[in-house]
Amino acid sequence: MSHPPPQSIHHEMRNVENSAAYLLPKLLAMKKSNPRLAILDVGAGSGSISASFAKAIPEGRVTATDKNKGILLRAAAVAELAGVSNIEFQEADVFKLPFADGTFDVTHCHQVLTHLKAPVDALREMLRVTKPGGIVAAREGDYDTECVWPNTPALTKFHEFAAGCINKLAGGSTSAGRQLLSWALQAGAEESQVTASFGTWCYSTPADKQGWTEGIVNTIRNKEGALRKGGLATGMTTEEDLEEMAKGWEEWNQTDGATLGMLHGEVIIQK
Amino acid sequence: MSHPPPQSIHHEMRNVENSAAYLLPKLLAMKKSNPRLAILDVGAGSGSISASFAKAIPEGRVTATDKNKGILLRAAAVAELAGVSNIEFQEADVFKLPFADGTFDVTHCHQVLTHLKAPVDALREMLRVTKPGGIVAAREGDYDTECVWPNTPALTKFHEFAAGCINKLAGGSTSAGRQLLSWALQAGAEESQVTASFGTWCYSTPADKQGWTEGIVNTIRNKEGALRKGGLATGMTTEEDLEEMAKGWEEWNQTDGATLGMLHGEVIIQK
Repeated sequence: MSHPPPQSIHHEMRNVENSAAYLLPKLLAMKKSNPRLAILDVGAGSGSISASFAKAIPEGRVTATDKNKGILLRAAAVAELAGVSNIEFQEADVFKLPFADGTFDVTHCHQVLTHLKAPVDALREMLRVTKPGGIVAAREGDYDTECVWPNTPALTKFHEFAAGCINKLAGGSTSAGRQLLSWALQAGAEESQVTASFGTWCYSTPADKQGWTEGIVNTIRNKEGALRKGGLATGMTTEEDLEEMAKGWEEWNQTDGATLGMLHGEVIIQK
Repeated sequence: MSHPPPQSIHHEMRNVENSAAYLLPKLLAMKKSNPRLAILDVGAGSGSISASFAKAIPEGRVTATDKNKGILLRAAAVAELAGVSNIEFQEADVFKLPFADGTFDVTHCHQVLTHLKAPVDALREMLRVTKPGGIVAAREGDYDTECVWPNTPALTKFHEFAAGCINKLAGGSTSAGRQLLSWALQAGAEESQVTASFGTWCYSTPADKQGWTEGIVNTIRNKEGALRKGGLATGMTTEEDLEEMAKGWEEWNQTDGATLGMLHGEVIIQK
């Protein structure tokens, strides 16, 4: 099994229960009338949510795609570890999904649109490959709402750096969560077809804060990581700043009553 | 029945299900072992949550307090409308609650600490009147995380004005939600006694947005309202700015895909 990059360890705690709870009642209702659901998980990354979908629909089938072929090797290993085999992996561009119109019952993405320059085009393509009567479901962070207590100059520096990476480096948006309903309408959905909600991240227990801090500190210090390499290459940050940010998170983790919260937008589009 | 101030109409949509969902499983478990629970609802305002508590524990008893005697008349009317009689109302200062130590099984507040200069003292007093084995529960907005889409200069102006009212006029905090865990520890709780979470506001359906807009526009334009009177008296805003803000919300309400979200901090302290 390939060794996961540090960020993946944090990402691989994700599953349907903690990252797609808004979708679960609808998914279970759909499964009741058709146990052989076909789910497409777009931008699946290391695939822990995809594997969790596969577990949830043992008679159905999950297709997990990502534009990064390498991460799909990791996703295959994650699925194997989870003991699921009703899943397949395919390299794919979200703007040109290699599937016929109306192929899937559920087309899902999690923290994908927030990183794209043209999220509406991606949603339109997701709607295309979804069956009439099926759904498109998306959950996207709204990084501008991230809040930490206590806040410090080092954590403000990190927030601004990470926001810059999303907005400038990736060309995405740190206010994706609040825009999901608007994007769904621009992609062709009628308002009556869309159910919008917000979910949260809450890091406040010692174990959760420790896990968060380890993940983020490893990401900051990882010499091969995109955040560090991209940030240094573009002059958005310096070695000294990065070390200050890492130490800021370690200090936060040691502070009594420390808390981190964030809003995530969620939409279900009924096709 | 007294005519409610405009803000109350919005507030009176609040009930245990939409405003204390984080507390509901614990409350139902406590009620199972003791149906005659005594609940104290501090800063109850017009009391729709208090009445909802009374409905939830028909064999128990709710005491609703507020420092504003006038609003408790409205709360009594709300309780009567809701058809509950296991509730009583009492004018009280949250810093000097007129109850003996260990009087209540559940001591609750909603959007109270965020408006106080000394929220930790209030929590300490709430813990004092709570029985050993009982709980203190609080849910407080984190107004700094409020996000609207689309944003406009008028809505930014409103956000800054409203934040100024909370921070300066009332001496409270627009980051109360994220600080709740920290405040609980400062009030004497051990970390192992506290369960912290975040809830959300989501206004994205036409009906919800219409209700929100009416409530906020009436509050802005209400000549007798604290927001308008306080804002004008202190020079924090002008008649022209207030009208621009009201029109900004009306315009927002007419915009396709408009959305409003906000984080709320939630804590349950096990005594």
